[in-house]
Amino acid sequence: MKLLIIGAGGVGTSAAKIIERRGAEGDWAEKVVVADYDFERAKKVANEICGGGKFVPAQINAMDPESIKSVVKEHGITFAMNACDPRMNETIFDTCLEAGIGYLDCAMTLGTEHPEKPYELANIKLGDYQFAKQKEWEASGQIAVCGSGVEPGMADVFAKYAEKHLFDKIDEVNVRDGDNYGNTDSDFGFSVWTTIEECLQPPVIWEKNEEHPEGHWFCTEQFSEPEIFNFPGGIGDVEVINVEHEEVLLVPREIDCNRCTFKYGVPADFRKKLMVLFEYGLSDKKTKIKVGDSEITPRDFICKVIPSPVDATLTMTGKGCAGTWVTGWKDGKYRSIYLYQIADNQDCIKKYTTNSVVAQTAVGPVIMMELIAKGIWSDAGAWGPEHFDPDPFVERLAKYEFPAGIREMDSEYADMINEQKMLEQLK
Amino acid sequence: MKLLIIGAGGVGTSAAKIIERRGAEGDWAEKVVVADYDFERAKKVANEICGGGKFVPAQINAMDPESIKSVVKEHGITFAMNACDPRMNETIFDTCLEAGIGYLDCAMTLGTEHPEKPYELANIKLGDYQFAKQKEWEASGQIAVCGSGVEPGMADVFAKYAEKHLFDKIDEVNVRDGDNYGNTDSDFGFSVWTTIEECLQPPVIWEKNEEHPEGHWFCTEQFSEPEIFNFPGGIGDVEVINVEHEEVLLVPREIDCNRCTFKYGVPADFRKKLMVLFEYGLSDKKTKIKVGDSEITPRDFICKVIPSPVDATLTMTGKGCAGTWVTGWKDGKYRSIYLYQIADNQDCIKKYTTNSVVAQTAVGPVIMMELIAKGIWSDAGAWGPEHFDPDPFVERLAKYEFPAGIREMDSEYADMINEQKMLEQLK
Repeated sequence: MKLLIIGAGGVGTSAAKIIERRGAEGDWAEKVVVADYDFERAKKVANEICGGGKFVPAQINAMDPESIKSVVKEHGITFAMNACDPRMNETIFDTCLEAGIGYLDCAMTLGTEHPEKPYELANIKLGDYQFAKQKEWEASGQIAVCGSGVEPGMADVFAKYAEKHLFDKIDEVNVRDGDNYGNTDSDFGFSVWTTIEECLQPPVIWEKNEEHPEGHWFCTEQFSEPEIFNFPGGIGDVEVINVEHEEVLLVPREIDCNRCTFKYGVPADFRKKLMVLFEYGLSDKKTKIKVGDSEITPRDFICKVIPSPVDATLTMTGKGCAGTWVTGWKDGKYRSIYLYQIADNQDCIKKYTTNSVVAQTAVGPVIMMELIAKGIWSDAGAWGPEHFDPDPFVERLAKYEFPAGIREMDSEYADMINEQKMLEQLK
Repeated sequence: MKLLIIGAGGVGTSAAKIIERRGAEGDWAEKVVVADYDFERAKKVANEICGGGKFVPAQINAMDPESIKSVVKEHGITFAMNACDPRMNETIFDTCLEAGIGYLDCAMTLGTEHPEKPYELANIKLGDYQFAKQKEWEASGQIAVCGSGVEPGMADVFAKYAEKHLFDKIDEVNVRDGDNYGNTDSDFGFSVWTTIEECLQPPVIWEKNEEHPEGHWFCTEQFSEPEIFNFPGGIGDVEVINVEHEEVLLVPREIDCNRCTFKYGVPADFRKKLMVLFEYGLSDKKTKIKVGDSEITPRDFICKVIPSPVDATLTMTGKGCAGTWVTGWKDGKYRSIYLYQIADNQDCIKKYTTNSVVAQTAVGPVIMMELIAKGIWSDAGAWGPEHFDPDPFVERLAKYEFPAGIREMDSEYADMINEQKMLEQLK
């Protein structure tokens, strides 16, 4: 595989470094072109952080199809990893289809809230643009894996793994993310723009109910359904809330389930701050505000003002846990299992020069690209990660230094849910 | 007096309308030129709201001395009321001095926090720029009354009135402002820019103590010393907090007092929101952010995004109370008196087309200009309102439909303070 990593930010840097640390085991990637709008940034990653050799820097404009095609042609690229801001997804996704190469991204094309009932009805959903092109990808003979970071990405593979090995019938798939980060003065752990996007879009939920026996997606108010989730690895209880996230759109396409949610631990104080930005119109990504002869959206403007969290996360201590909590029936009994991956922030900075959220986001794509390069994942089309066999992915996590864990929820807790479910069935 | 009102926003509109409502009693103003950068806005105020006649519209650029001078010359102006944003004070103040006409503003030139210890030491204070030109104004034979709205302005006159009539010796002068506004969906009651300025600059306090027996100004953190103050007129208990305000700089120059503070009722929820803007650097009025080929400060940008509160206040119910709480000794006993003015929002909108905060801000300047026009206030120089005889001002408030009130604080409360003060004196 001749790989093009588009974007030499945190995720692109970590992905390249993860391949480099694999040594000869990373030979499935015979060439890795690290491309960025800022050539100096690309050079630093390819030459300094990864030590050159098969790592080659390039200048690219990810918003310009011709620029992407020219890099693809020059280096004989066969597969592109999109490590850019999701606003660039459509252009890069379409250009890879046109260029006849494989594609992978870590977040899907963006959603748009319902114009009248944003906190009730789903409208244009995350990834709708990409799934609409499924047939074209099938015809092209190439694979596009969409939503392939950690969440979405690894979390989706965990859901598929649970379905394949741990349950006869699944009830709910609930992605849960929490951390015990400390020693940081930034509220933001990753991209300010993306944090605002996922926190302030109305969260989407998948549910089957009497009115919708086949299931449906609906939306709620921001930060709905707060819940205390107990995370493993010493992290402990964290209050998590619903946010808009790809897994909720991806999982039900492939896995039969009654409910699917995504919740993560946005501290109550930070939630209030984000709602202030929302209430004052400062998170608005659409309205163009005139400044002199130029125009800018409020969100793009505040992203110029709020310091990038990258530096702040360098001092951050603690661990982040990403995982999928699956409930359902096995051998006639109700069961509740959490599959997860925990990364230590300082450990990731030492190994990959990037923080744990970013490094966790990068490892899934690298494993998936290895599987594609080796023909283990081979079904042409545009898919979420749960479309493929989860086993070779899960097996590789430990080899890639991101070991997964599994927790059978304590019996009292499972019993309580069991009882609830039985009571519901008796109704 | 041939009067020029610079700025046809809320305060300029109310001031013109207050003069108009006085009928023949307003003849001290033989001509009133209402000038604005936006000529249509000036025309609406002069011709529609005030009905033309002696009210004449003009176009002006308040940041350009030549533009101001040209309007002054064309209309034979003898006195200018500055009803603009305080950022324009220096230019207008200096131009009036050069042009040899009188001057009045409703807020003073801005302060700059101490570069090393902003929450401890005072630095450039509100009005410092203006008081530095005291001698030049004296020499010019003209009066400049600085800080002459309601707070500062009316509140300063109340302090002077208390000193003249109600106390043998003053202890503290504490301006207190609270309201029971309802039915509004805007947090901001007046200019967004100015609200941010006065709330987020470190509040300044005047105090005499052992280390500073002659008194000194010092600063604290934003929103310091929360206190419940009971407001008259059915408003009741409101939590008030320190903010940076002119009275604290003005009063101690003319009135011997041990402490001087300004506190107003910024709801706790709104305080938190303002602190979010502050924490994320969005209230910054200095840093220039590049947008295309232009530049803008974060504060100027967010003022383009946050809706102007003017429309929101039109539906607002309730009353606002502005006043001065003076404590001290009279006939050997400790006394505690609150002098105040209450305005009803809907009543002000009916009478002046503007909300109560704006109308209260405009009435003081009009009364002061009448006193200057009639030679009742006549001391040349740059002064705060407490420099002059308060009686003719206070007498006129009721005639101008803004009746003042006076409340002798209840004896238990006064006794409590008395006891505290005696205990302190015994130490």
